[in-house]
Amino acid sequence: MSMKMVINRAAASRVLSGVVKRLPGETLLKDTTTNTRTMASKAVTLENLNPNIIKLEYAVRGPLVIRAGEIEKELEKGASKPFQKVIRANIGDAHAMGQRPITFIRQVLSCIANTELLEKGDFPEDVKERAREILCGCGGGSVGAYSASQGIEHIRRHVAEYIEKRDGHPARWQDICLSAGASTAIKNCLQLLCNDIDGKKSGVMIPIPQYPLYSASLAEYGLAQVGYYLDEDCGWGLSIDELERSLTDAQKNCNCNVRALVVINPGNPTGQVLTRENIEQVIKFAHKHSLFIFADEVYQDNVYAEGSAFHSFKKVLMELGAEYSSQELASFMTISKGYMGECGLRGGWVELVHMLPEVQAQLYKCMSAMLCPSVLGQAVVDCVAKPPAPGEPSYELWIKEKTDILTSLKDRAKLIADTFNTFEGFKCNLVQGAMYAFPRITLPPKAIQAAKDKNMAPDVFYAFRLLEETGVCIVPGSGFGQKPGTYHFRTTILPQPDLLNTMLQNFRNFHQKFTQEYA
Amino acid sequence: MSMKMVINRAAASRVLSGVVKRLPGETLLKDTTTNTRTMASKAVTLENLNPNIIKLEYAVRGPLVIRAGEIEKELEKGASKPFQKVIRANIGDAHAMGQRPITFIRQVLSCIANTELLEKGDFPEDVKERAREILCGCGGGSVGAYSASQGIEHIRRHVAEYIEKRDGHPARWQDICLSAGASTAIKNCLQLLCNDIDGKKSGVMIPIPQYPLYSASLAEYGLAQVGYYLDEDCGWGLSIDELERSLTDAQKNCNCNVRALVVINPGNPTGQVLTRENIEQVIKFAHKHSLFIFADEVYQDNVYAEGSAFHSFKKVLMELGAEYSSQELASFMTISKGYMGECGLRGGWVELVHMLPEVQAQLYKCMSAMLCPSVLGQAVVDCVAKPPAPGEPSYELWIKEKTDILTSLKDRAKLIADTFNTFEGFKCNLVQGAMYAFPRITLPPKAIQAAKDKNMAPDVFYAFRLLEETGVCIVPGSGFGQKPGTYHFRTTILPQPDLLNTMLQNFRNFHQKFTQEYA
Repeated sequence: MSMKMVINRAAASRVLSGVVKRLPGETLLKDTTTNTRTMASKAVTLENLNPNIIKLEYAVRGPLVIRAGEIEKELEKGASKPFQKVIRANIGDAHAMGQRPITFIRQVLSCIANTELLEKGDFPEDVKERAREILCGCGGGSVGAYSASQGIEHIRRHVAEYIEKRDGHPARWQDICLSAGASTAIKNCLQLLCNDIDGKKSGVMIPIPQYPLYSASLAEYGLAQVGYYLDEDCGWGLSIDELERSLTDAQKNCNCNVRALVVINPGNPTGQVLTRENIEQVIKFAHKHSLFIFADEVYQDNVYAEGSAFHSFKKVLMELGAEYSSQELASFMTISKGYMGECGLRGGWVELVHMLPEVQAQLYKCMSAMLCPSVLGQAVVDCVAKPPAPGEPSYELWIKEKTDILTSLKDRAKLIADTFNTFEGFKCNLVQGAMYAFPRITLPPKAIQAAKDKNMAPDVFYAFRLLEETGVCIVPGSGFGQKPGTYHFRTTILPQPDLLNTMLQNFRNFHQKFTQEYA
Repeated sequence: MSMKMVINRAAASRVLSGVVKRLPGETLLKDTTTNTRTMASKAVTLENLNPNIIKLEYAVRGPLVIRAGEIEKELEKGASKPFQKVIRANIGDAHAMGQRPITFIRQVLSCIANTELLEKGDFPEDVKERAREILCGCGGGSVGAYSASQGIEHIRRHVAEYIEKRDGHPARWQDICLSAGASTAIKNCLQLLCNDIDGKKSGVMIPIPQYPLYSASLAEYGLAQVGYYLDEDCGWGLSIDELERSLTDAQKNCNCNVRALVVINPGNPTGQVLTRENIEQVIKFAHKHSLFIFADEVYQDNVYAEGSAFHSFKKVLMELGAEYSSQELASFMTISKGYMGECGLRGGWVELVHMLPEVQAQLYKCMSAMLCPSVLGQAVVDCVAKPPAPGEPSYELWIKEKTDILTSLKDRAKLIADTFNTFEGFKCNLVQGAMYAFPRITLPPKAIQAAKDKNMAPDVFYAFRLLEETGVCIVPGSGFGQKPGTYHFRTTILPQPDLLNTMLQNFRNFHQKFTQEYA
């Protein structure tokens, strides 16, 4: 048996012993049919399964979240718990937490889905106009037709105009590619890098802590993960010295060709907003080392702190001058975050900057086999890229809804960090942007021991206890990465104000009890 | 330089010389910025790009279709052509070809997108009820919330009920996984097989001709393609002897572990519908060789020929008895085909049968990192799985619309094959099901030579000429695979009757002219 098989077996056995062998929505799967073939005769077993799939972890929807779903079912069946409902603070899902959709977006969607409404329905004129314009770009005038794989051309043009307006620099519609949320586009771009050259894997630098789509996708594609630490003591800042250290270490110890750098700004899970100067330094670093930049800018509308502002990597790159005019960059955006929060509709885009045209053609070719992203998701992209303009019938309501949501998120960002900082052993940086707080927590040594006795990471142990005792579902820091010996968790700032206050109160009580129990 | 690099370079140079270096919607990309870095300093070039991406081909949206888009732009700008519009017969996109959506589906969609319509709108009671039920399954009652990664539970339950009714055998909702069209689910399942064991790749048996999602995905994942030929002279039948021949050849010559078998029924591009006996034989073959069965059954509603009927692999498997009770099977379905044709809305499902629970948990874990398929696509799945029932207000219209569409498709399937069979040198099998005709064409030796002189496959040459001279866009047989020395093409049967007649007339004239030119 090869070494590789031994490792796979170990992984398989870890999986078998853990909660992940359960499927969501049920406690245990049993094969009740009479098996006449042994397990070994199955075509696909844990032993011959793609080992990258076994390695892949995605904590945002991991075992804790599966357990949260089970608890919800138990509550439905009348189980007695110390709480009445589960608060899903694990995922940036604004509507699930009670945020209302933007009226204009939903009016346009209903008109393009059901074109009879264009005649019969009572809608503002700009809604109908927008709906007709989108339908004009659809095959046969139906959102049921496939679009071009990169999206409907006039929507790509609107996105380019949006970016031009945002940055003050030209954007080409041909370089905009619409996608089913940012994740698909990110994965498509990462996949370009899969190539073992001279016996070395490609490596990708990602922040630690990071959004686990990155670690999951790197595992899935067999790419090397090269982590650089964000500096918690400096507000989760991004230090160039640390980038250099990480790169040098990887080149020495990791047997990989480092080819790309991921930056998440505003930060997920960490909530920092990079300064313009910092972005300049990052671009210079990437350029010096010929790294492709992945700029995850899905929270570009979510900036709350005084003095913070969103600067796109594209804009800063353009303003660095001709020396940087071939630095490659992919910038990702989504309709799931911002003020719209339309996670379920699956829409987003990537802008490709300075990618070699022949490489871009290969990327587009690869995407074409998946046909196209949801046309209704694309329609939401259109509304976001080209919102109602001043003077149009829907403008006032649009601005009011958008402002109300962003103001409320700003208030909650402050409330949650301020409150956590009053908890004993909590230290929470300012939430400058995005949708999360990522406080550091000090756990009593006895709690750490209790976790180890159960073969669990201490922060996972803490999060499971919190879930079972309060119904609050958070994601342990180990799901994002953290410096060894430190413990964190990520919570969203998305519960509506009343629920958020309840959640924080229950959290405080739990934490006091937990700390006393293990004192 | 390693052998691998040499191959990559060769592939890269082929790509550079071909049309694929153009992006859709423009004739040629030029980098007009002043490049201070040489191409070699780019992070991603054709030379260090993922070589699997370079290998990947997807003819349904390949160079011909890119050219079709260009011609449309030329026509818009007033170019003079021997035709007034491009007829996109390359892709199974019913709405783009003028098919009207099913009213019930679109009414439900508009109500769930814009919940104000539930109060104000004038909709049948069952539409409103359905909308409310779907919203009940959404976080915060909004389709803008993420669903569970495998889809909304009650929609999965409706799919299970649909399958039970179809097959007369139990289906578990936990084994149904909703997806953004069938393609995503197929790729997710294929990816499970990526594992080099004892230095051998995993191999997957696919029909030749096949739907090129399979060849593209196998290339993308570095899986070995093991083709088995369908028997054109027996109505594209699937012979077990040929399956055995193909498997034995692969084991001898291909250095791979053959682990799965793909069957497309009804066939794409070939339009055959398998008999129950044939399906039994296929299952026995798979079972004998421990192969995982991929049953691509997306055209299950599209069966036209007298005496043909759709038999699901699941049903036949269940009825083969206990000996087969652990045979693994994945059956794929979509909302893009059938009578609904909702391609742009991206919805579908896979039913997993007899998959090891721990493998299924790994698959579900992997899917969870992509969050969820479009909730609106899921809503269409719900309407398809649980259509209006007799006595409900929307029932009569639903049945009328569905029947009209399927009857018209049946007429067109017959018309197109009958007409092609009157063309000199054409031989077209009966279109028993699906949405395509795949005639064999005899090309004059001089045409074959002319194609070779241009370094093109003869059927590609023919298809380009057809496109330029008539505006009809078809897909050459080489994009699907065909026996060496034979030439085919795929056309959809989807243009509405008047347009289809025009298309066939223009096609006939072109073919006569082409044949004379190269006589």
